Amino acid sequence: MGRIITIGREFGSGGREIGTRLAEALKIAYYDSEIVTKIAQKTDLAEEYVHQILERSPVTFLPITIGQTFYPMSDPQLEQSNSVYYEQHNIIREMAEKSDCVIVGRCADYILRDKHPLRVFVYASSEFKFKRCREKAPEGESMSDRELRRHIKAVDRERAQYYQFITGQKWGNPLNYDVCINTTESPIKEIVAGLVKMCE
Amino acid sequence: MGRIITIGREFGSGGREIGTRLAEALKIAYYDSEIVTKIAQKTDLAEEYVHQILERSPVTFLPITIGQTFYPMSDPQLEQSNSVYYEQHNIIREMAEKSDCVIVGRCADYILRDKHPLRVFVYASSEFKFKRCREKAPEGESMSDRELRRHIKAVDRERAQYYQFITGQKWGNPLNYDVCINTTESPIKEIVAGLVKMCE
Repeated sequence: MGRIITIGREFGSGGREIGTRLAEALKIAYYDSEIVTKIAQKTDLAEEYVHQILERSPVTFLPITIGQTFYPMSDPQLEQSNSVYYEQHNIIREMAEKSDCVIVGRCADYILRDKHPLRVFVYASSEFKFKRCREKAPEGESMSDRELRRHIKAVDRERAQYYQFITGQKWGNPLNYDVCINTTESPIKEIVAGLVKMCE
Repeated sequence: MGRIITIGREFGSGGREIGTRLAEALKIAYYDSEIVTKIAQKTDLAEEYVHQILERSPVTFLPITIGQTFYPMSDPQLEQSNSVYYEQHNIIREMAEKSDCVIVGRCADYILRDKHPLRVFVYASSEFKFKRCREKAPEGESMSDRELRRHIKAVDRERAQYYQFITGQKWGNPLNYDVCINTTESPIKEIVAGLVKMCE
C-alpha cells in the first residue's frame, strides 16, 4: 500500500532514528533537513536562519484596523517568516505528491491532512531523553546536566509553540496522531518492525 | 519472544476487539470477563456486583486518628471492595505467571509492571466511539443520541477514576503506556498486524 508517514517527536526520544529506519525498511524517501535546504534555496535565506524561523513561533503583529480597512504593520522579519512557512508548505506538499515518504517534524501531519498520512508521535520519559542526548552528544559537548535538561525542555517548548501557531492544535495531543510510541522501554528495532506492518 | 500485553481502552474505541484479535494472532491466552468470574468464585459475590466494584472507584473512608493510633471505621462495603481488589491483583498475577497472555483493562499494566508487559492504550475520537457503539449495540437498545454520548463519557470517567484510585496515575497519560493507538482512521486489521510485530 502506498503511504505517507509523518513523525512528530519529542527532542531526544529517537523519533528521527525511527523515521530513517522506517524509510529504509519501506524503501521510500526520507525528508528532514532536506526541507530546510530547499526552503533556503527558494527564499535566498541562510539555512541556519530558516532553521531558526522553523523552530520558533514568531511574535505576531496584529494589523491595525481603521474603519473597515486593514493596514498590516510592515515588518521585514515577519514577512521573511511568512515566506518561509509558505515555502515549507509548498515543498512538503510537492514531496508528498512526488512519492511515498517519511517526513519528520515540520507540522507535516497537519499540512498533509487531506492525504491521510499515518501520523506517528514519538515520546519518552525525561530521564530516557536525557540519557539518549548524552549518548548521542557530539564530541566536546560541554553542557552540564542541568543545562542539558533545560535545553531538552526548551526545544520541546519551542516545538509545541510552533505546532500550535501553525496548526492551532496542541502538540503531542494523542487525538492528532494515529500511533503514539513511547521509546522509554521498547527497542527501536521492534517499534520500526511494527510500524512497517501498519503501513503494508 | 514470550510476552504479556495489557490493553487499556476508551469505551467504544475497539480496544477489546484489538485484544481478542491480537491474542488469536499470537496464539496466547486472552483475559477480560474471565477475571470477574474468577473473583466472584473466590469472594462468593455475584459477578454483577464484582463488576460494579471494579468499574467504580469507591468513596474511601479516612481512618479516625486518636493520638497515635488509627481506628479505621468498619464498613462492610469497603471491606468487600478491598477483597475484590485483592483477589483481582492475585488472579491477574497468577494468569501472567501461567502463560503469555493479553489482559484487557483492570489496571493490569500497573499490577504487572515488574514483568514489563507491552502496555497498549486504545482511544478514538468522540464521534468514532459514538458511531461504533451504535453499530455494536445489542438489538432493542433504546438510548437516545444524547444518552449514548453521556453514557460513553460516564464509563470513561469511571475507568479514569478507578485507574487513578488503584495506581495513583492518570488514566490515558501516554507516559504510562508503550504504544497508544487511535482507531479513528486506522483499520483494526493493520493495527493488530503492527502490534504482533512489536511482540515478536
